[in-house]
Amino acid sequence: MENKKEINAAIIIIGNEVLSGRTKDLNTSTISIWLNSLGIFVKEVRIIPDFEKTIIENVNELRNKFNYVFTTGGIGPTHDDITAESVSKAFNLEYGFHNEAFSILEKYYDPGEFNDGRQKMAKMPTTANLILNPTSGAPGFYVENVFCLPGVPSILKSMIGGLDNVLVGGDPVLSKTINLRTYESEIAESLTNVQNNNKDVEIGSYPFFRQGKLGVSIVLRSVNQNKINICSSQILDFISKKNIEIVE
Amino acid sequence: MENKKEINAAIIIIGNEVLSGRTKDLNTSTISIWLNSLGIFVKEVRIIPDFEKTIIENVNELRNKFNYVFTTGGIGPTHDDITAESVSKAFNLEYGFHNEAFSILEKYYDPGEFNDGRQKMAKMPTTANLILNPTSGAPGFYVENVFCLPGVPSILKSMIGGLDNVLVGGDPVLSKTINLRTYESEIAESLTNVQNNNKDVEIGSYPFFRQGKLGVSIVLRSVNQNKINICSSQILDFISKKNIEIVE
Repeated sequence: MENKKEINAAIIIIGNEVLSGRTKDLNTSTISIWLNSLGIFVKEVRIIPDFEKTIIENVNELRNKFNYVFTTGGIGPTHDDITAESVSKAFNLEYGFHNEAFSILEKYYDPGEFNDGRQKMAKMPTTANLILNPTSGAPGFYVENVFCLPGVPSILKSMIGGLDNVLVGGDPVLSKTINLRTYESEIAESLTNVQNNNKDVEIGSYPFFRQGKLGVSIVLRSVNQNKINICSSQILDFISKKNIEIVE
Repeated sequence: MENKKEINAAIIIIGNEVLSGRTKDLNTSTISIWLNSLGIFVKEVRIIPDFEKTIIENVNELRNKFNYVFTTGGIGPTHDDITAESVSKAFNLEYGFHNEAFSILEKYYDPGEFNDGRQKMAKMPTTANLILNPTSGAPGFYVENVFCLPGVPSILKSMIGGLDNVLVGGDPVLSKTINLRTYESEIAESLTNVQNNNKDVEIGSYPFFRQGKLGVSIVLRSVNQNKINICSSQILDFISKKNIEIVE
Protein backbone atom coordinates (compact mmCIF):
# COMPACT_ATOMS: atom_id res chain seq x y z
CA MET A 1 0.00 0.00 0.00
CA GLU A 2 1.49 3.32 -1.05
CA ASN A 3 0.43 6.28 1.07
CA LYS A 4 2.44 9.36 0.25
CA LYS A 5 1.32 11.35 3.29
CA GLU A 6 2.12 8.49 5.63
CA ILE A 7 3.23 9.43 9.14
CA ASN A 8 4.95 6.50 10.84
CA ALA A 9 6.17 5.38 14.24
CA ALA A 10 8.19 2.72 16.01
CA ILE A 11 7.65 1.27 19.47
CA ILE A 12 10.46 0.17 21.79
CA ILE A 13 9.30 -2.16 24.56
CA ILE A 14 11.99 -2.03 27.25
CA GLY A 15 11.95 -4.93 29.66
CA ASN A 16 13.64 -8.22 30.49
CA GLU A 17 10.29 -9.54 31.73
CA VAL A 18 8.86 -9.47 28.19
CA LEU A 19 11.99 -11.00 26.62
CA SER A 20 11.97 -13.84 29.15
CA GLY A 21 8.41 -14.71 28.17
CA ARG A 22 7.16 -14.10 31.70
CA THR A 23 5.03 -11.11 30.72
CA LYS A 24 3.06 -10.84 27.49
CA ASP A 25 3.32 -7.44 25.84
CA LEU A 26 -0.07 -5.74 25.72
CA ASN A 27 1.19 -2.22 25.07
CA THR A 28 1.97 -2.69 21.37
CA SER A 29 -1.66 -3.36 20.63
CA THR A 30 -2.87 -0.40 22.72
CA ILE A 31 -0.41 2.05 21.17
CA SER A 32 -0.90 0.80 17.60
CA ILE A 33 -4.69 1.04 17.69
CA TRP A 34 -4.51 4.50 19.25
CA LEU A 35 -1.94 5.74 16.70
CA ASN A 36 -3.95 4.27 13.81
CA SER A 37 -6.89 6.40 14.92
CA LEU A 38 -4.64 9.46 14.61
CA GLY A 39 -3.40 8.42 11.16
CA ILE A 40 0.03 7.30 12.39
CA PHE A 41 1.24 3.84 11.38
CA VAL A 42 3.47 1.66 13.48
CA LYS A 43 6.11 0.23 11.16
CA GLU A 44 8.36 -1.55 13.62
CA VAL A 45 8.34 -2.76 17.20
CA ARG A 46 11.44 -3.79 19.11
CA ILE A 47 11.55 -5.55 22.45
CA ILE A 48 14.91 -4.97 24.10
CA PRO A 49 16.51 -5.61 27.50
CA ASP A 50 17.03 -3.14 30.38
CA PHE A 51 20.58 -2.41 29.20
CA GLU A 52 21.76 1.17 28.78
CA LYS A 53 23.86 0.81 25.64
CA THR A 54 21.10 -1.14 23.88
CA ILE A 55 18.46 1.43 24.81
CA ILE A 56 20.61 4.33 23.59
CA GLU A 57 21.44 2.62 20.28
CA ASN A 58 17.84 1.68 19.54
CA VAL A 59 16.43 5.09 20.48
CA ASN A 60 18.98 6.85 18.28
CA GLU A 61 18.51 4.50 15.33
CA LEU A 62 14.72 4.60 15.36
CA ARG A 63 14.21 8.31 16.10
CA ASN A 64 16.12 9.09 12.91
CA LYS A 65 14.20 6.51 10.88
CA PHE A 66 10.58 7.17 11.94
CA ASN A 67 8.42 10.24 12.61
CA TYR A 68 7.70 9.16 16.17
CA VAL A 69 9.18 6.71 18.67
CA PHE A 70 7.33 5.45 21.74
CA THR A 71 9.13 3.63 24.54
CA THR A 72 7.37 1.68 27.27
CA GLY A 73 8.81 0.57 30.58
CA GLY A 74 11.74 1.45 32.77
CA ILE A 75 10.58 4.78 34.22
CA GLY A 76 9.72 3.55 37.72
CA PRO A 77 11.64 3.94 40.99
CA THR A 78 13.75 0.74 41.09
CA HIS A 79 17.34 -0.03 40.09
CA ASP A 80 16.24 -1.70 36.83
CA ASP A 81 14.39 1.44 35.67
CA ILE A 82 17.00 3.08 33.44
CA THR A 83 14.98 4.43 30.51
CA ALA A 84 14.96 8.10 31.61
CA GLU A 85 18.74 8.19 32.11
CA SER A 86 19.39 6.27 28.88
CA VAL A 87 17.18 8.60 26.83
CA SER A 88 18.96 11.60 28.37
CA LYS A 89 22.25 10.14 27.15
CA ALA A 90 20.81 9.34 23.70
CA PHE A 91 20.00 13.04 23.30
CA ASN A 92 23.10 14.31 25.16
CA LEU A 93 20.84 16.09 27.64
CA GLU A 94 21.33 16.65 31.36
CA TYR A 95 19.69 13.94 33.50
CA GLY A 96 18.39 15.27 36.80
CA PHE A 97 15.36 16.48 38.71
CA HIS A 98 12.69 17.91 36.43
CA ASN A 99 11.19 20.86 38.32
CA GLU A 100 7.61 20.35 37.19
CA ALA A 101 7.72 16.56 37.67
CA PHE A 102 9.23 17.02 41.14
CA SER A 103 6.47 19.45 42.08
CA ILE A 104 3.71 17.11 40.79
CA LEU A 105 5.08 14.15 42.76
CA GLU A 106 5.69 16.21 45.90
CA LYS A 107 2.01 17.19 45.91
CA TYR A 108 0.88 13.65 45.01
CA TYR A 109 2.41 12.01 48.09
CA ASP A 110 1.51 12.66 51.72
CA PRO A 111 4.01 14.78 53.69
CA GLY A 112 7.06 12.68 54.58
CA GLU A 113 6.17 9.98 52.01
CA PHE A 114 8.12 11.47 49.11
CA ASN A 115 11.18 9.29 49.68
CA ASP A 116 14.32 8.75 47.56
CA GLY A 117 12.74 5.99 45.43
CA ARG A 118 9.79 8.21 44.60
CA GLN A 119 12.03 11.20 43.95
CA LYS A 120 13.84 9.12 41.31
CA MET A 121 10.66 9.23 39.25
CA ALA A 122 11.15 13.01 38.93
CA LYS A 123 14.55 12.45 37.30
CA MET A 124 14.67 12.63 33.51
CA PRO A 125 16.09 14.98 30.86
CA THR A 126 15.67 18.25 32.77
CA THR A 127 14.29 20.01 29.68
CA ALA A 128 11.81 17.27 28.70
CA ASN A 129 8.09 17.86 28.22
CA LEU A 130 5.87 15.91 30.60
CA ILE A 131 3.19 13.35 29.79
CA LEU A 132 0.71 13.57 32.66
CA ASN A 133 -0.37 10.46 34.56
CA PRO A 134 -3.95 10.58 35.87
CA THR A 135 -3.64 7.12 37.46
CA SER A 136 -0.58 7.08 39.66
CA GLY A 137 1.04 10.51 39.60
CA ALA A 138 4.46 9.81 38.10
CA PRO A 139 4.59 11.47 34.67
CA GLY A 140 6.13 10.18 31.47
CA PHE A 141 8.00 12.59 29.24
CA TYR A 142 9.00 13.36 25.70
CA VAL A 143 12.02 14.87 24.00
CA GLU A 144 11.66 15.89 20.35
CA ASN A 145 9.94 12.88 18.71
CA VAL A 146 10.64 10.29 21.45
CA PHE A 147 7.81 9.63 23.92
CA CYS A 148 8.55 7.64 27.09
CA LEU A 149 5.64 5.84 28.73
CA PRO A 150 5.41 3.42 31.66
CA GLY A 151 5.18 -0.36 31.21
CA VAL A 152 2.08 -1.09 33.29
CA PRO A 153 -0.68 -1.41 30.64
CA SER A 154 -3.50 0.22 32.62
CA ILE A 155 -1.38 3.25 33.51
CA LEU A 156 -0.09 3.60 29.95
CA LYS A 157 -3.68 3.49 28.64
CA SER A 158 -4.70 6.32 30.96
CA MET A 159 -1.84 8.55 29.74
CA ILE A 160 -1.80 8.33 25.95
CA GLY A 161 -4.99 10.34 25.40
CA GLY A 162 -3.13 13.38 26.73
CA LEU A 163 -0.91 13.26 23.62
CA ASP A 164 -3.71 13.44 21.04
CA ASN A 165 -3.12 17.15 20.49
CA VAL A 166 0.67 16.88 20.56
CA LEU A 167 1.01 14.33 17.75
CA VAL A 168 0.48 15.31 14.12
CA GLY A 169 -1.02 12.45 12.11
CA GLY A 170 -2.03 11.83 8.52
CA ASP A 171 -5.12 10.29 6.98
CA PRO A 172 -6.49 7.67 9.37
CA VAL A 173 -6.41 4.12 8.05
CA LEU A 174 -9.81 2.54 7.66
CA SER A 175 -10.32 -1.20 7.77
CA LYS A 176 -12.91 -3.86 7.09
CA THR A 177 -12.74 -7.47 8.26
CA ILE A 178 -14.48 -10.41 6.58
CA ASN A 179 -14.42 -13.69 8.55
CA LEU A 180 -14.88 -16.85 6.52
CA ARG A 181 -15.39 -20.52 7.24
CA THR A 182 -12.74 -21.75 4.84
CA TYR A 183 -9.05 -22.59 4.49
CA GLU A 184 -6.55 -20.03 3.20
CA SER A 185 -5.55 -22.41 0.43
CA GLU A 186 -9.16 -22.43 -0.92
CA ILE A 187 -9.11 -18.68 -1.51
CA ALA A 188 -5.43 -17.92 -2.08
CA GLU A 189 -5.61 -17.65 -5.87
CA SER A 190 -8.79 -15.54 -5.96
CA LEU A 191 -7.42 -13.28 -3.23
CA THR A 192 -4.19 -12.75 -5.17
CA ASN A 193 -6.27 -11.61 -8.17
CA VAL A 194 -8.24 -9.17 -6.03
CA GLN A 195 -5.01 -7.81 -4.51
CA ASN A 196 -3.51 -7.31 -7.98
CA ASN A 197 -6.63 -5.36 -9.03
CA ASN A 198 -6.65 -3.22 -5.86
CA LYS A 199 -3.12 -2.00 -5.28
CA ASP A 200 -4.17 0.77 -2.87
CA VAL A 201 -5.83 -1.63 -0.46
CA GLU A 202 -3.67 -3.78 1.81
CA ILE A 203 -5.30 -7.21 1.96
CA GLY A 204 -4.26 -9.42 4.88
CA SER A 205 -5.27 -13.05 5.26
CA TYR A 206 -5.12 -14.56 8.77
CA PRO A 207 -6.12 -18.13 9.61
CA PHE A 208 -7.79 -18.66 13.00
CA PHE A 209 -9.01 -21.49 15.21
CA ARG A 210 -12.13 -20.57 17.18
CA GLN A 211 -14.45 -22.90 19.08
CA GLY A 212 -12.62 -25.82 17.53
CA LYS A 213 -13.21 -24.61 13.97
CA LEU A 214 -10.78 -23.27 11.40
CA GLY A 215 -11.48 -20.06 9.58
CA VAL A 216 -9.81 -17.16 7.82
CA SER A 217 -10.06 -13.44 8.57
CA ILE A 218 -9.55 -11.20 5.58
CA VAL A 219 -8.62 -7.67 6.59
CA LEU A 220 -8.79 -4.78 4.10
CA ARG A 221 -6.93 -1.59 5.04
CA SER A 222 -6.75 1.71 3.19
CA VAL A 223 -7.08 5.43 3.78
CA ASN A 224 -9.86 5.43 1.15
CA GLN A 225 -13.27 4.00 2.13
CA ASN A 226 -14.45 3.81 -1.48
CA LYS A 227 -11.47 1.64 -2.45
CA ILE A 228 -12.17 -0.66 0.49
CA ASN A 229 -15.78 -1.00 -0.65
CA ILE A 230 -14.79 -1.89 -4.23
CA CYS A 231 -12.26 -4.45 -3.00
CA SER A 232 -14.76 -5.89 -0.52
CA SER A 233 -17.42 -6.40 -3.20
CA GLN A 234 -14.91 -8.27 -5.39
CA ILE A 235 -14.11 -10.56 -2.47
CA LEU A 236 -17.78 -11.13 -1.61
CA ASP A 237 -18.32 -11.97 -5.28
CA PHE A 238 -15.81 -14.85 -5.38
CA ILE A 239 -16.87 -16.03 -1.91
CA SER A 240 -20.44 -16.35 -3.11
CA LYS A 241 -19.35 -18.26 -6.26
CA LYS A 242 -17.34 -20.68 -4.10
CA ASN A 243 -20.25 -21.13 -1.62
CA ILE A 244 -18.05 -20.11 1.31
CA GLU A 245 -19.86 -19.24 4.55
CA ILE A 246 -19.32 -15.82 6.17
CA VAL A 247 -19.10 -16.03 9.99
CA GLU A 248 -19.18 -13.43 12.78
CA MET B 1 24.19 -10.41 34.57
CA GLU B 2 27.38 -11.69 32.97
CA ASN B 3 27.17 -15.24 31.63
CA LYS B 4 30.19 -16.17 29.56
CA LYS B 5 28.68 -19.29 28.03
CA GLU B 6 25.54 -17.46 27.02
CA ILE B 7 23.79 -18.67 23.87
CA ASN B 8 21.39 -16.04 22.56
CA ALA B 9 18.59 -15.62 20.05
CA ALA B 10 16.39 -13.04 18.38
CA ILE B 11 12.78 -13.40 17.26
CA ILE B 12 11.31 -11.70 14.19
CA ILE B 13 7.52 -11.52 14.22
CA ILE B 14 6.45 -10.94 10.62
CA GLY B 15 2.97 -9.58 10.16
CA ASN B 16 1.00 -6.41 9.52
CA GLU B 17 -1.78 -7.75 11.74
CA VAL B 18 0.45 -7.49 14.82
CA LEU B 19 1.76 -4.03 13.89
CA SER B 20 -1.78 -2.74 13.37
CA GLY B 21 -2.70 -3.82 16.89
CA ARG B 22 -5.42 -6.14 15.59
CA THR B 23 -3.64 -9.30 16.77
CA LYS B 24 -1.72 -9.58 20.03
CA ASP B 25 1.57 -11.43 19.69
CA LEU B 26 1.54 -14.63 21.73
CA ASN B 27 4.47 -16.32 20.02
CA THR B 28 7.23 -14.31 21.72
CA SER B 29 6.21 -15.66 25.09
CA THR B 30 5.96 -19.26 23.81
CA ILE B 31 9.34 -19.17 22.07
CA SER B 32 11.13 -17.35 24.91
CA ILE B 33 9.97 -19.75 27.62
CA TRP B 34 10.86 -22.75 25.46
CA LEU B 35 14.31 -21.36 24.60
CA ASN B 36 14.98 -20.48 28.26
CA SER B 37 14.41 -24.14 29.11
CA LEU B 38 17.15 -25.02 26.61
CA GLY B 39 19.54 -22.41 28.00
CA ILE B 40 19.08 -20.00 25.09
CA PHE B 41 18.24 -16.38 25.90
CA VAL B 42 16.13 -14.13 23.73
CA LYS B 43 17.91 -10.79 23.55
CA GLU B 44 15.76 -8.96 21.02
CA VAL B 45 12.37 -9.23 19.38
CA ARG B 46 11.35 -7.27 16.30
CA ILE B 47 7.88 -7.00 14.86
CA ILE B 48 8.06 -6.03 11.19
CA PRO B 49 5.66 -5.74 8.23
CA ASP B 50 5.14 -8.24 5.37
CA PHE B 51 7.57 -6.34 3.17
CA GLU B 52 10.33 -8.22 1.36
CA LYS B 53 13.17 -5.70 1.71
CA THR B 54 12.45 -5.26 5.43
CA ILE B 55 12.38 -9.02 6.03
CA ILE B 56 15.68 -9.55 4.18
CA GLU B 57 17.44 -6.71 6.03
CA ASN B 58 16.28 -7.84 9.44
CA VAL B 59 17.08 -11.52 8.86
CA ASN B 60 20.58 -10.65 7.65
CA GLU B 61 21.28 -8.19 10.46
CA LEU B 62 20.07 -10.46 13.26
CA ARG B 63 21.50 -13.77 12.00
CA ASN B 64 24.95 -12.22 12.16
CA LYS B 65 24.36 -10.73 15.61
CA PHE B 66 22.78 -13.67 17.49
CA ASN B 67 23.33 -17.43 17.71
CA TYR B 68 19.81 -18.19 16.56
CA VAL B 69 17.02 -16.33 14.81
CA PHE B 70 13.38 -17.45 14.83
CA THR B 71 10.82 -15.96 12.46
CA THR B 72 7.09 -16.39 12.84
CA GLY B 73 4.42 -15.83 10.21
CA GLY B 74 4.25 -15.50 6.45
CA ILE B 75 4.72 -19.15 5.42
CA GLY B 76 1.11 -19.87 4.45
CA PRO B 77 -0.51 -20.10 1.00
CA THR B 78 -1.74 -16.52 0.40
CA HIS B 79 -0.27 -13.55 -1.47
CA ASP B 80 0.86 -11.87 1.78
CA ASP B 81 2.94 -14.91 2.81
CA ILE B 82 6.40 -13.90 1.62
CA THR B 83 8.71 -15.12 4.39
CA ALA B 84 10.00 -18.23 2.56
CA GLU B 85 10.89 -16.29 -0.59
CA SER B 86 12.42 -13.42 1.40
CA VAL B 87 14.59 -15.76 3.49
CA SER B 88 15.76 -17.50 0.29
CA LYS B 89 16.88 -14.11 -0.99
CA ALA B 90 18.54 -13.22 2.33
CA PHE B 91 20.73 -16.33 1.95
CA ASN B 92 21.08 -16.09 -1.85
CA LEU B 93 19.50 -19.52 -2.17
CA GLU B 94 17.18 -20.88 -4.86
CA TYR B 95 13.48 -20.48 -3.95
CA GLY B 96 11.37 -23.31 -5.34
CA PHE B 97 9.64 -26.58 -4.56
CA HIS B 98 11.31 -28.46 -1.72
CA ASN B 99 11.10 -32.16 -2.64
CA GLU B 100 10.46 -33.49 0.84
CA ALA B 101 7.97 -30.73 1.74
CA PHE B 102 6.12 -31.33 -1.54
CA SER B 103 5.92 -35.04 -0.84
CA ILE B 104 4.64 -34.46 2.74
CA LEU B 105 1.91 -32.09 1.57
CA GLU B 106 0.93 -34.30 -1.39
CA LYS B 107 0.30 -37.18 1.05
CA TYR B 108 -1.44 -34.89 3.58
CA TYR B 109 -4.19 -33.77 1.18
CA ASP B 110 -6.82 -35.95 -0.46
CA PRO B 111 -6.23 -36.71 -4.16
CA GLY B 112 -7.14 -33.69 -6.28
CA GLU B 113 -7.07 -31.35 -3.25
CA PHE B 114 -3.39 -30.41 -3.52
CA ASN B 115 -4.09 -27.19 -5.41
CA ASP B 116 -1.81 -24.28 -6.37
CA GLY B 117 -2.30 -22.45 -3.08
CA ARG B 118 -1.36 -25.54 -1.09
CA GLN B 119 1.60 -26.28 -3.36
CA LYS B 120 2.95 -22.80 -2.53
CA MET B 121 3.52 -24.05 1.02
CA ALA B 122 6.12 -26.50 -0.40
CA LYS B 123 8.11 -23.57 -1.82
CA MET B 124 11.10 -22.42 0.22
CA PRO B 125 14.90 -22.49 -0.10
CA THR B 126 15.20 -25.82 -1.95
CA THR B 127 18.09 -26.93 0.27
CA ALA B 128 16.43 -25.99 3.59
CA ASN B 129 15.93 -28.42 6.47
CA LEU B 130 12.31 -29.01 7.40
CA ILE B 131 10.56 -28.38 10.72
CA LEU B 132 7.74 -30.90 10.85
CA ASN B 133 4.17 -29.83 11.58
CA PRO B 134 2.09 -32.40 13.47
CA THR B 135 -1.00 -30.15 13.45
CA SER B 136 -1.67 -29.07 9.90
CA GLY B 137 0.86 -30.68 7.58
CA ALA B 138 2.70 -27.70 6.13
CA PRO B 139 6.26 -27.75 7.46
CA GLY B 140 8.42 -24.85 8.58
CA PHE B 141 12.09 -24.84 7.68
CA TYR B 142 15.53 -23.70 8.73
CA VAL B 143 18.66 -22.54 6.94
CA GLU B 144 21.85 -22.31 9.00
CA ASN B 145 20.79 -20.50 12.20
CA VAL B 146 17.47 -19.08 10.94
CA PHE B 147 14.31 -21.02 11.86
CA CYS B 148 11.03 -20.14 10.11
CA LEU B 149 7.82 -21.00 11.95
CA PRO B 150 4.16 -20.26 11.23
CA GLY B 151 2.25 -17.41 12.86
CA VAL B 152 -0.74 -19.35 14.23
CA PRO B 153 0.16 -19.83 17.94
CA SER B 154 -1.30 -23.32 18.39
CA ILE B 155 0.47 -24.66 15.29
CA LEU B 156 3.75 -23.02 16.27
CA LYS B 157 3.50 -24.57 19.74
CA SER B 158 3.06 -28.03 18.26
CA MET B 159 6.19 -27.66 16.09
CA ILE B 160 8.92 -26.24 18.32
CA GLY B 161 9.46 -29.42 20.37
CA GLY B 162 10.83 -31.04 17.19
CA LEU B 163 13.79 -28.68 17.39
CA ASP B 164 14.93 -29.58 20.91
CA ASN B 165 17.67 -31.82 19.55
CA VAL B 166 18.70 -29.45 16.77
CA LEU B 167 19.45 -26.45 18.98
CA VAL B 168 22.56 -26.30 21.13
CA GLY B 169 21.93 -24.36 24.35
CA GLY B 170 23.94 -23.33 27.37
CA ASP B 171 23.21 -23.42 31.06
CA PRO B 172 19.47 -23.02 31.58
CA VAL B 173 18.43 -19.88 33.43
CA LEU B 174 16.72 -20.54 36.74
CA SER B 175 14.33 -18.09 38.27
CA LYS B 176 12.47 -17.35 41.46
CA THR B 177 9.56 -14.95 41.86
CA ILE B 178 8.56 -13.19 45.08
CA ASN B 179 5.22 -11.35 44.99
CA LEU B 180 4.77 -8.58 47.53
CA ARG B 181 1.94 -6.37 48.69
CA THR B 182 3.89 -3.13 48.47
CA TYR B 183 4.86 -0.26 46.19
CA GLU B 184 8.10 -0.29 44.22
CA SER B 185 9.13 2.97 45.86
CA GLU B 186 8.97 1.33 49.33
CA ILE B 187 11.59 -1.24 48.42
CA ALA B 188 13.65 0.48 45.73
CA GLU B 189 16.59 1.42 47.95
CA SER B 190 16.85 -1.98 49.70
CA LEU B 191 16.55 -3.77 46.37
CA THR B 192 19.35 -1.67 44.89
CA ASN B 193 21.59 -2.72 47.79
CA VAL B 194 20.77 -6.39 47.24
CA GLN B 195 21.43 -6.04 43.50
CA ASN B 196 24.81 -4.42 44.22
CA ASN B 197 25.72 -7.34 46.51
CA ASN B 198 24.57 -9.99 44.01
CA LYS B 199 25.98 -9.06 40.62
CA ASP B 200 25.42 -12.51 39.10
CA VAL B 201 21.70 -12.48 39.76
CA GLU B 202 19.46 -10.37 37.54
CA ILE B 203 16.83 -8.79 39.80
CA GLY B 204 13.71 -7.50 38.06
CA SER B 205 11.00 -5.48 39.78
CA TYR B 206 7.55 -5.42 38.15
CA PRO B 207 4.56 -3.58 39.58
CA PHE B 208 1.17 -5.25 39.07
CA PHE B 209 -2.50 -4.52 39.65
CA ARG B 210 -4.48 -7.62 40.58
CA GLN B 211 -8.00 -7.81 41.98
CA GLY B 212 -7.92 -4.07 42.46
CA LYS B 213 -4.76 -4.17 44.54
CA LEU B 214 -1.26 -2.96 43.78
CA GLY B 215 1.74 -5.20 44.28
CA VAL B 216 5.26 -5.85 43.07
CA SER B 217 6.76 -9.03 41.61
CA ILE B 218 10.47 -9.43 42.22
CA VAL B 219 12.02 -11.88 39.79
CA LEU B 220 15.49 -13.32 40.40
CA ARG B 221 17.24 -14.94 37.43
CA SER B 222 20.59 -16.70 37.27
CA VAL B 223 22.18 -19.87 35.97
CA ASN B 224 23.27 -20.60 39.56
CA GLN B 225 20.62 -21.81 42.02
CA ASN B 226 22.83 -21.17 45.03
CA LYS B 227 23.29 -17.52 44.08
CA ILE B 228 19.51 -17.16 43.67
CA ASN B 229 19.01 -18.61 47.15
CA ILE B 230 21.49 -16.20 48.75
CA CYS B 231 19.92 -13.25 46.99
CA SER B 232 16.43 -14.41 47.91
CA SER B 233 17.28 -14.69 51.60
CA GLN B 234 18.65 -11.13 51.59
CA ILE B 235 15.39 -9.90 50.06
CA LEU B 236 13.24 -11.88 52.52
CA ASP B 237 15.32 -10.35 55.29
CA PHE B 238 14.55 -6.72 54.41
CA ILE B 239 10.92 -7.58 53.62
CA SER B 240 10.49 -9.00 57.08
CA LYS B 241 12.09 -5.93 58.69
CA LYS B 242 9.73 -3.67 56.74
CA ASN B 243 6.67 -5.80 57.63
CA ILE B 244 5.77 -6.25 53.98
CA GLU B 245 3.24 -9.00 53.19
CA ILE B 246 4.18 -11.78 50.73
CA VAL B 247 1.29 -12.76 48.43
CA GLU B 248 0.66 -15.63 46.03
